[in-house]
Amino acid sequence: MRTDFEFFSTKNVVFGNGSIQKLPQILDRYQAENVLIVTDQGIKGAGILKKITHLLEGSGLNISVYDKTLPEPPLSTAVECYNFAKDQQATDVIIGLGGGSSIDLSKVMALLIKYGGNPQDYVGENLVPGPIAPLIAIPTTAGTGSEVTSVAVLNDTDNKIKAGVSDNNLRPAVALLDPELTVNLPPYVTACSGIDALAHAIEAFTAKDFRYIEAEGELLFQGSNPISDSLALEAIRLITNNLTLVVQQGSNLEARGNMLIGSLLAGMAFSNAGTAAAHALAYPIGGLCESPHGELTGLLLPHVMEYNVGVVPEKLEKISEAFHVDNKDLDTKEAANFAIEEVFNLVEQIGLPTKLSHIGVKEEDLSIIAEKALPIERLIRNNPRVPTKDTILELLKKAY
Amino acid sequence: MRTDFEFFSTKNVVFGNGSIQKLPQILDRYQAENVLIVTDQGIKGAGILKKITHLLEGSGLNISVYDKTLPEPPLSTAVECYNFAKDQQATDVIIGLGGGSSIDLSKVMALLIKYGGNPQDYVGENLVPGPIAPLIAIPTTAGTGSEVTSVAVLNDTDNKIKAGVSDNNLRPAVALLDPELTVNLPPYVTACSGIDALAHAIEAFTAKDFRYIEAEGELLFQGSNPISDSLALEAIRLITNNLTLVVQQGSNLEARGNMLIGSLLAGMAFSNAGTAAAHALAYPIGGLCESPHGELTGLLLPHVMEYNVGVVPEKLEKISEAFHVDNKDLDTKEAANFAIEEVFNLVEQIGLPTKLSHIGVKEEDLSIIAEKALPIERLIRNNPRVPTKDTILELLKKAY
Ligand SMILES: [Fe+2]
Ligand SMILES: [Fe+2]
Repeated sequence: MRTDFEFFSTKNVVFGNGSIQKLPQILDRYQAENVLIVTDQGIKGAGILKKITHLLEGSGLNISVYDKTLPEPPLSTAVECYNFAKDQQATDVIIGLGGGSSIDLSKVMALLIKYGGNPQDYVGENLVPGPIAPLIAIPTTAGTGSEVTSVAVLNDTDNKIKAGVSDNNLRPAVALLDPELTVNLPPYVTACSGIDALAHAIEAFTAKDFRYIEAEGELLFQGSNPISDSLALEAIRLITNNLTLVVQQGSNLEARGNMLIGSLLAGMAFSNAGTAAAHALAYPIGGLCESPHGELTGLLLPHVMEYNVGVVPEKLEKISEAFHVDNKDLDTKEAANFAIEEVFNLVEQIGLPTKLSHIGVKEEDLSIIAEKALPIERLIRNNPRVPTKDTILELLKKAY
Repeated sequence: MRTDFEFFSTKNVVFGNGSIQKLPQILDRYQAENVLIVTDQGIKGAGILKKITHLLEGSGLNISVYDKTLPEPPLSTAVECYNFAKDQQATDVIIGLGGGSSIDLSKVMALLIKYGGNPQDYVGENLVPGPIAPLIAIPTTAGTGSEVTSVAVLNDTDNKIKAGVSDNNLRPAVALLDPELTVNLPPYVTACSGIDALAHAIEAFTAKDFRYIEAEGELLFQGSNPISDSLALEAIRLITNNLTLVVQQGSNLEARGNMLIGSLLAGMAFSNAGTAAAHALAYPIGGLCESPHGELTGLLLPHVMEYNVGVVPEKLEKISEAFHVDNKDLDTKEAANFAIEEVFNLVEQIGLPTKLSHIGVKEEDLSIIAEKALPIERLIRNNPRVPTKDTILELLKKAY
């Protein structure tokens, strides 16, 4: 039995409509002189980048912009961005502006600018020597939670595998959440990223208790604990109560704000507790079809909850409360089943696919998916029910 | 209306029975060579200091110990401790070991060792130039939350006033919670510190919404927000379910652990949201009698809840759920009243005084207490119901 857990957090969250106005003030706290903004063409096209650079005009800061971030950035993009940064005056503060990809890339920049080397040098767990350069993460979607997590995922396109840098030093110094930046996000992207945030929160909340995680040494994903539980449950409340609303009413600023906070809290929770089977299964499926990550985790989530219900019924009962299920006359198991039902309904309601067969997965792939997911130890070991080939295959057949 | 809030957090929490064993490893993360331990005679007498120094023997670290912290440390103690530190080899990491006083003093040391000067130079809000030296806070009581807060309270004995240093840079780098260090705490001290933690959680949870705090500029105490709310509510749950238990069964390690986490979460919540009228009133009363801080905040807490019930009934209803009040057939107001009742009962159950007249306050003092509390702007403005002289006097009479 493990006897202790550690909880890591971003030191500073800034939230509010128009809170990007605080950026000059925040940069000042870090005595910034030369700032590198890492973003992408979408953010530039939407006029969000201009908002930021406009704000910093006349501040006396020297701003350079790398706006060529690609989705799931290849290692070569990281090298290109770093070379660009080296051509500028010595960067002292980095701003990551955009979705998960831009923020992930900005984390790698804050790492390379501080310690040099190649991105490959740090691929793996706990290979970052110490604190990275000051990084301000400004998410423009509510989903990945990357603005507070310890992970940056790059793509090793040569070897066709994900190249993740995972280290508690990778957490941004500041997460700046401005709901106004997210109002123009299209419904489909809003739905995919929002349901992924729910998957983070529910997988963290139902993860195996930290005491019973079977692994030695310092773990990045440590299983559920009282601190991550409280954050995850609040995230579940915020997301379940606002996701349909933001998909239907993109300009509903209050709901957008609640989603941003929900996704941040989910990020704080899962980056300590870890995610589990839904995420482990989403990775090999992602290699077989074009669906974005959130579409997969959302599709799998209720099936994984069903798979786990016998082991964590009380946790699922609490999730049913977040959905305002009137469970006063229900026993724990019944309430837990309602929670699963509600997640199924939510996925459908926001217009996302509910069957693997609808997204191009073939029945003969299911066995390969199970085989590839099971060795993803750092996620599989967090699942409250121990996944086996047979039971996972059964789960996948239900989801098919 | 204010449009944004900031949330600040300690980066790293370590929790677990025997988790002080991790100390060498944690010191290593900060490349520690010369470590200053700030503690007091009580901790030394209880053998806790020896446990720590024993752990660090053979680590090659150069350890110096200041063990003369006084309760509510006078400014002169801070000067003495700093002079002691200057006589040692250049300290690179500070450990604060003990109750709120030792940890508060260790914060001031981490500040002076980094920036020099006198403690008086920093008394006030936001006067710390930047990050302080790495500080590991190890609480031996569950109550103040000082291991995660932004405040250090010293005593200006010449002028007979509290001298508080308040700055987000003052938060310790690491909060290390080992329940085993708290098992020998006597019931009375356990009760006082535990009920104070509940007061932190409830005052933070019921604080005025950040949008409606009437004050300009950057505030340390910003009012309630979704992040502080989720932490405060979990703190309320943990404390209400474990406080009587730890007072009655000091060696119940699980309950001790829950109290430590509850008090930490309460600290994270109130150091962002702020406390309110119960704390504002406790300060002038503390000047009139010998009662420890927690005895006063605990005594006042249910009265302040009663005072506020009309403005925040839903918040109090949620508190009633933490007490497991079966409120399914109650309306919000009824459930809220049960929460107040439960706090009254809890204070009584743990053996603390429930009337100001029992602790040496005189009836003619009540008016002076109200007059002195009302100008404590940073707390009073957080109270959900606007305190006035008349209504506060009425509250005090009920508490008398
Ligand atoms: Fe995800
Ligand atoms: Fe207090």
